[in-house]
Formats: sequence, C-alpha cells, structure tokens
Amino acid sequence: MTGSRSARAAKSLAAPAKEANEPAPLQFGELSELIGYRFKRAQLRVFEDFIRCVASLQLTPAQFSVLVLLEHNPGRNQTEIASALGIQRPNFVSMLDALESRDLCERVRSNQDRRSHMVMLTDKGRAILARAKRLVATKHEARLKALLGEADCAALLKILDKLAAF
Amino acid sequence: MTGSRSARAAKSLAAPAKEANEPAPLQFGELSELIGYRFKRAQLRVFEDFIRCVASLQLTPAQFSVLVLLEHNPGRNQTEIASALGIQRPNFVSMLDALESRDLCERVRSNQDRRSHMVMLTDKGRAILARAKRLVATKHEARLKALLGEADCAALLKILDKLAAF
Repeated sequence: MTGSRSARAAKSLAAPAKEANEPAPLQFGELSELIGYRFKRAQLRVFEDFIRCVASLQLTPAQFSVLVLLEHNPGRNQTEIASALGIQRPNFVSMLDALESRDLCERVRSNQDRRSHMVMLTDKGRAILARAKRLVATKHEARLKALLGEADCAALLKILDKLAAF
Repeated sequence: MTGSRSARAAKSLAAPAKEANEPAPLQFGELSELIGYRFKRAQLRVFEDFIRCVASLQLTPAQFSVLVLLEHNPGRNQTEIASALGIQRPNFVSMLDALESRDLCERVRSNQDRRSHMVMLTDKGRAILARAKRLVATKHEARLKALLGEADCAALLKILDKLAAF
C-alpha cells in the first residue's frame, strides 16, 4: 500500500499531466460517517494486529477463542461451544476440522448422546494455547492498551459493555 | 437466550436437586478480559442490529457497503472495490454473484482491460440503496446514538479513529 503510493507519487512528479489516468482513491460516501462501518473497520485492524502478534503459532482470533473455551469447558459438545461464541455451525465445523488436522483438539462421540460430539483440547493444543495466551497478553493487548492510554481504554470498555447489551 | 435462561430458572425452582445435570453456562476464561474479544462481540451486536433494521431489504452490512461504493465510484473494477473495503477476493466474488442475481448490480467487461470487470449499480440497486440508507440512518444509527448518548458517541468515534490508524 505504502509502496504503491510512493511509486505513484514518484511517477506523478516525473510526468504530472500524462499520468492523469492514474486511478483516483475511491470515495466512501455515507460510509465514512456511519458508526457501524467505522466500528467494523477498526475491529478489522485490531484482528490484523492479533494475527500479526500470534503469527508464529498460526492462530486466528476465532481459533484462539475456540481453544480458550475448550480449555475452560472440557467435555462440552460442539454445538454448545459454537453457540457460546456466536459462530455459525458450518463455519465452526470447518474451523474444528482445521484445528483437529493440526492435532490441537479432538472430537469424541458423547457417551450420553451418540449423535453429539464433545470437543477436547489435546496436549499439543494446550501447549500452543499457553504460548498464544502469552503472545496475546504481552504483544497484542499490551499494544492496544499503549495505543489507547488508560483513560480511553476504560472509556472503550464501558462503551463495549453498553453495546454488548444492545 | 433470555427465554432459555428464564426457563432454566423456572425449572430449577421447581426441582432444584434433580435438575443438577442441566448444562451450566460456559466459562469464557481469559476471553472476558481481552479488549479484542469484547470489541468483536460488541461489533457483532452492532451488525445484528443493522441486519434487523434493514431486514425488509435483505441486505447485510457488507452488501450495503458494496452498494454505497458502487454508487460513489461508477466504472471502477471489482478488484478496486473489494480492496477498498478490505473484502477478500473469493468472498467478494460470491457477494457480487448474490447482488447480481437480485439485479442490484451488474458486471461489465472493461473496454480498457478485457480481463477486468467494472461493476455498476442497476436502477433497481440504486432504488434499494436509497431505501437502505434511510433505514440505516433513521433506525440503526439513530438507535446506536441514542444508546450511547452524545458524549460516549464522540468518545467512541475518537477511539475508533485511533484504532483505525493502528
């Protein structure tokens, strides 16, 4: 992004008139004024930072949240985990497939209900999760807190609580 | 959620000891303390409200943002629109398929570059978008602003700007 922007700047210095067909930045119209849209864009940046901070472990924020829930709720079935996290069933199934193929969790048929699958963290999953939690706390969350400062951080959490009860 | 919780409360009043195998609520562990996770949950609630407010037009927030960009940037190609909105290419292609099948937009092969497709709003798309914008402004955004109040709304926008530059 920055690279192509500086290339463009260099070009336009070299030949200001000829390069008029260089694409102009897109107009966002009403979107720029909408709280919902700005909220989503900011949320995407936060997730990008999460992914960067946890890159060595190759975990998305959603995968991380699944592993945390598995650790704290052993023996619960996959429907309960998915619904607690607000993840839709087909997405959750492919997410579990990916985690299981990396030996981070396993599905075990429930003894009480043969149609239902419990999801368990494996030893490897537990070890990766412990490392991920350290990276999230010391890199990602620490960076967010430093960026916002104490007052804005407290203000944000208060606002998020209001919105969560929306 | 509320319904099942009150049903559970009623049950446990009726037979407190026997109902001990009623599933306990899941534990969220470290997630409850993470700004990133709380941000995402709040963002999901905001999107749920958007979808409810625009339900009569059957538009998701992402589809709405695509239509707004098409209106403000006629003749731009699909790669530019997708990248401006931060939508990944395969997701964007299926989103355009859905919008095109409802006759809200159309892809036209570019005259300058035959490999590239421009995306245009149709008349129907323009009409639906105008109605959607009214619903978003008068219902969804108005509800958000009322919930937050003026001070928290201003505080949130300031924080979102900080995060967007993260």
